[in-house]
Amino acid sequence: MTGLVKRQIERADPAVIDALGACGVATVHESQGRTGLLASRLRPIYAGARIAGSAVTISAPPGDNWMLHVAIELVQPGDIIVLSPTSPCEDGYFGDLLATSAMARGCRGLIIDAGVRDVRDLTEMGFPVWSKAVFAQGTIKTSLGSVNVPIVCAGAAIMPGDVIIADDDGVCVVPREQAATVLAAAQKREANEGDKRNRLAGGELGLDMYDMRGKLAALGLTYV
Amino acid sequence: MTGLVKRQIERADPAVIDALGACGVATVHESQGRTGLLASRLRPIYAGARIAGSAVTISAPPGDNWMLHVAIELVQPGDIIVLSPTSPCEDGYFGDLLATSAMARGCRGLIIDAGVRDVRDLTEMGFPVWSKAVFAQGTIKTSLGSVNVPIVCAGAAIMPGDVIIADDDGVCVVPREQAATVLAAAQKREANEGDKRNRLAGGELGLDMYDMRGKLAALGLTYV
Amino acid sequence: MTGLVKRQIERADPAVIDALGACGVATVHESQGRTGLLASRLRPIYAGARIAGSAVTISAPPGDNWMLHVAIELVQPGDIIVLSPTSPCEDGYFGDLLATSAMARGCRGLIIDAGVRDVRDLTEMGFPVWSKAVFAQGTIKTSLGSVNVPIVCAGAAIMPGDVIIADDDGVCVVPREQAATVLAAAQKREANEGDKRNRLAGGELGLDMYDMRGKLAALGLTYV
Amino acid sequence: MTGLVKRQIERADPAVIDALGACGVATVHESQGRTGLLASRLRPIYAGARIAGSAVTISAPPGDNWMLHVAIELVQPGDIIVLSPTSPCEDGYFGDLLATSAMARGCRGLIIDAGVRDVRDLTEMGFPVWSKAVFAQGTIKTSLGSVNVPIVCAGAAIMPGDVIIADDDGVCVVPREQAATVLAAAQKREANEGDKRNRLAGGELGLDMYDMRGKLAALGLTYV
Amino acid sequence: MTGLVKRQIERADPAVIDALGACGVATVHESQGRTGLLASRLRPIYAGARIAGSAVTISAPPGDNWMLHVAIELVQPGDIIVLSPTSPCEDGYFGDLLATSAMARGCRGLIIDAGVRDVRDLTEMGFPVWSKAVFAQGTIKTSLGSVNVPIVCAGAAIMPGDVIIADDDGVCVVPREQAATVLAAAQKREANEGDKRNRLAGGELGLDMYDMRGKLAALGLTYV
Amino acid sequence: MTGLVKRQIERADPAVIDALGACGVATVHESQGRTGLLASRLRPIYAGARIAGSAVTISAPPGDNWMLHVAIELVQPGDIIVLSPTSPCEDGYFGDLLATSAMARGCRGLIIDAGVRDVRDLTEMGFPVWSKAVFAQGTIKTSLGSVNVPIVCAGAAIMPGDVIIADDDGVCVVPREQAATVLAAAQKREANEGDKRNRLAGGELGLDMYDMRGKLAALGLTYV
Repeated sequence: MTGLVKRQIERADPAVIDALGACGVATVHESQGRTGLLASRLRPIYAGARIAGSAVTISAPPGDNWMLHVAIELVQPGDIIVLSPTSPCEDGYFGDLLATSAMARGCRGLIIDAGVRDVRDLTEMGFPVWSKAVFAQGTIKTSLGSVNVPIVCAGAAIMPGDVIIADDDGVCVVPREQAATVLAAAQKREANEGDKRNRLAGGELGLDMYDMRGKLAALGLTYV
Repeated sequence: MTGLVKRQIERADPAVIDALGACGVATVHESQGRTGLLASRLRPIYAGARIAGSAVTISAPPGDNWMLHVAIELVQPGDIIVLSPTSPCEDGYFGDLLATSAMARGCRGLIIDAGVRDVRDLTEMGFPVWSKAVFAQGTIKTSLGSVNVPIVCAGAAIMPGDVIIADDDGVCVVPREQAATVLAAAQKREANEGDKRNRLAGGELGLDMYDMRGKLAALGLTYV
Repeated sequence: MTGLVKRQIERADPAVIDALGACGVATVHESQGRTGLLASRLRPIYAGARIAGSAVTISAPPGDNWMLHVAIELVQPGDIIVLSPTSPCEDGYFGDLLATSAMARGCRGLIIDAGVRDVRDLTEMGFPVWSKAVFAQGTIKTSLGSVNVPIVCAGAAIMPGDVIIADDDGVCVVPREQAATVLAAAQKREANEGDKRNRLAGGELGLDMYDMRGKLAALGLTYV
Repeated sequence: MTGLVKRQIERADPAVIDALGACGVATVHESQGRTGLLASRLRPIYAGARIAGSAVTISAPPGDNWMLHVAIELVQPGDIIVLSPTSPCEDGYFGDLLATSAMARGCRGLIIDAGVRDVRDLTEMGFPVWSKAVFAQGTIKTSLGSVNVPIVCAGAAIMPGDVIIADDDGVCVVPREQAATVLAAAQKREANEGDKRNRLAGGELGLDMYDMRGKLAALGLTYV
Repeated sequence: MTGLVKRQIERADPAVIDALGACGVATVHESQGRTGLLASRLRPIYAGARIAGSAVTISAPPGDNWMLHVAIELVQPGDIIVLSPTSPCEDGYFGDLLATSAMARGCRGLIIDAGVRDVRDLTEMGFPVWSKAVFAQGTIKTSLGSVNVPIVCAGAAIMPGDVIIADDDGVCVVPREQAATVLAAAQKREANEGDKRNRLAGGELGLDMYDMRGKLAALGLTYV
Repeated sequence: MTGLVKRQIERADPAVIDALGACGVATVHESQGRTGLLASRLRPIYAGARIAGSAVTISAPPGDNWMLHVAIELVQPGDIIVLSPTSPCEDGYFGDLLATSAMARGCRGLIIDAGVRDVRDLTEMGFPVWSKAVFAQGTIKTSLGSVNVPIVCAGAAIMPGDVIIADDDGVCVVPREQAATVLAAAQKREANEGDKRNRLAGGELGLDMYDMRGKLAALGLTYV
């Protein structure tokens, strides 16, 4: 199954993607039934970035970054590259040259369950990366992997074209077909949160706002 | 023993608490015989925060943040919430809504041996958290835990009302009854450090300032 | 073998050292055949530092920082202290007083496969550290170690006087005798990178620039 | 999507399943293009077990083992239960009572990316488990999960009815539709291995048997 | 607080201790409200051991095993030594000579949140150890710790004289004053389990035996 | 520097090697000043093996086991293969075919800071391995590494021809030139231990046998 590249993938509506990005990882995760999170070992290389885009997926051999070059040709503006190695690896698959190339194609960022390097350059360029490690270890270009195939990245199943949301809280994937539905739920959730936030800021307790006291008492919560 | 909430706890003198906070984690830890540190896996979500306060403790089931609502009602200005899950967990127990509520009660921060989310919002709000992970995973409100009971958090035994100090070096607990004694030792230590710092900055060696050469030679240190 | 201190070590040419530092960790690592990296668990205590210098090495017992005082006497301007504990340890061997002393001797930074504390002070002082942990745990001054002996630090073999490069990507060691050769290779590599960066920024693909398409096809890469 | 249970799943041919089990994890993994392995953190609770069966999958909340009871009703002789928690957890979801029930249904074993307990009893009963941890921590029965839905377990995507192979090397999944094809490749591979093993045992070198010397020399391997 | 040794400690009734041991870790943990487990990183050096005894506690500096000699003098037949280092450490505090001495005093085993060595000898002697690591690294005898003081070991608070239960599932502590109460609950639990086990072995489902179907349906569990 | 193979290496006296093996890892480590241990993450695939031999070293790319074939040609009876990947990796570099070949050459075992597979076969063959992981992940034969060059394996510097000792406690390296000296110290240490063991077994305390009471009192140890 290795050595496959799918040129054409379907993507979600760009407006939906951007709106999901504005909601952020935590809200989107909640709005699709608390699913879709990638493992917490993926951390941003700098704070404050917040992106959303369509996944261009890569399955790559450990320590071999050749498929990144193959993938970049397929990137369209608004895409996010998502790379999962076929076995655990923290080598530095990606640095400033690849970031330059990816940015030239309109790529919004990289999600990688491995290592990344040149993080000072990437920070200055404003190219955000969520990675398992920062490690300068060089990689080779010897073996084939696949591009735009279904992958599992950091514990989450991802299809090419799925919507990726990433911010300081981590990374979340939304299946492409569910993007609009999830967005509707997320925006509804956000609308509710503003009112809640105001009430809590005013000193109202969650115990009262959510009407929890009775249920707590029924379960036997005892104040002493 | 689960399902207990203690409404009233004793707290240390606020002036002592604030003075301990000004000393910082490393100095306080040294001043109580090198005890009281929580494990290094607890890291601040942003750099530069430095807090001290009285512990409102929570023992919570894994993935269930209900007791945070119970605890917030009991928070008094100057308190710090300290949550330990009953088994290892990195779910995101706490986000911007709970932080809004906690801040409205005068809470100074959160120490949690689990995950936290909405860290960008928390950073903007200036609500500091020391956590094991940043993870957006949602939690439920189904099972009871306890509030203001003795807990072990990140390897340290903590009683409700103990003094918590947290800064970029991590988190330290001072037993409430010893707060004044530890403060006296910490301030004495700090007074000494100013002179030492000046002498070291001037080029004097620790070998001479601490009179170490003889003891090193006696143990057989050999220069070649 | 414990308890040895070598007063005199040979150092590389200061101009070469500084030039290696300007190249950075990733480039230097590549330029010496992808060798010399210390493990990725060593992370900078603050972003943006970039140093190079001659290694003053320390082999220290776990939880005993006495040899740091011995080493600081031997530091010359431009040196970097590199400490490896004799068994895994995350105690805080180093803080603001030792940093003050080290800076007074012209020390450029610390590489330590253990813990460090007072990181807020160190950040304000501009004394960079790459460490395995931030942990306030105090250390003792009871047992001998050695200074300026060969060590293994975070998986890399380091001789006293070897060149250490450290930046946001981590830490790399260059054997002293190879410093000039590695620099030549690194500068050649950098010269090439400027042109590549420009071409990639202009939209040229790595697939074309590196002439990869034929080899990929020969290996069987299949587009669908 | 939570709270779904699929009663009927398709299974592979029992003869194919058993034959895959006889090949073992390493051979099957190789025979499907080096795919399908679950992460190495899953280890057997006792050495020597070797099983194959059809996956009955469970997605369970952290610390909640209710869905195991739901799943056991759906187990048919020859099945293997595969449980993945919705967030990282090492609680003891499974012990001797559940094993008794599972064995009564003909279940061949359990694969769980969490904890297990009563391992002495399980060993005496001969009920094999591959788990992330051994931990006695009790779980609750409060929240719904799903049974026989697609899951990601220890980094591998698994569909209900897929073939699971587990032995001392770990755990491998074979997509149900590919079971017969993979078996054919595995048996061919095994047939070849007998001859190779004999030649190697007789002292023939892999360098010669696989005709590697020329390629090594061409790449520049240098003997000194 | 360091340097304290308490000669006399109170112990639970030996018959209660032994009966708790016969119940095992999982049952005892359940019977005291799912509390008391030490972290799962403590693993037995050989399978099959099952012990219970009174805790002789040690707080020891990292890499310094002197206090083990102090503790062994205080061991009475039936005791278990429990050692926690004051900071994370995996050095080999304990080997065959200390085991010989401990066995001569009637010690039943060692619980240590650090390393142990000579595990082949210990296995042949039948001296069980639950440890964080097996590591031959030698330790020194230079600094004081304390014996029979309250400690936190692997995340659990332990008082001298508390009852320790350890088997293949890990380690559990029972507060001394609660030993008889917990035993009563444990034995009641065990009595119930026999009947349950028989029914489950006969093919009855937990869904029916525990009458779960209604509650699952009420929560919305959906079969498709 | 990659791509080098040194055909001829010097080895220590076989009688010395075997005698070091009889002493075991802990004793040898102690006898050379508590140095030479490899990290505790290297664990034996089965209990009870105890070997000593001359190191044939391999530096291999991650996920590429080609150099094992090159190394086996150079193995002489009594040698032990020691493999370190150039970046962290847990792939299964070695299985039953390579073990068959290595055994045919008289190889006594494998030390590998990566993964191994076919562990059931290796156990039945009696070919011992100390590895970081058991993982079936296949490797490729594409890139060069080096054989019989200096390496760092699991934190220890190892030269080709150094003596490797491995048993249930882990792995230790003795520099070839020091083998006889270390053996003499180890045997002296063992001679002393027999008497100590007898006295301790007879109930004499270490406190008395080592005359520790005075020093403990002088440091302030306080009995209460």
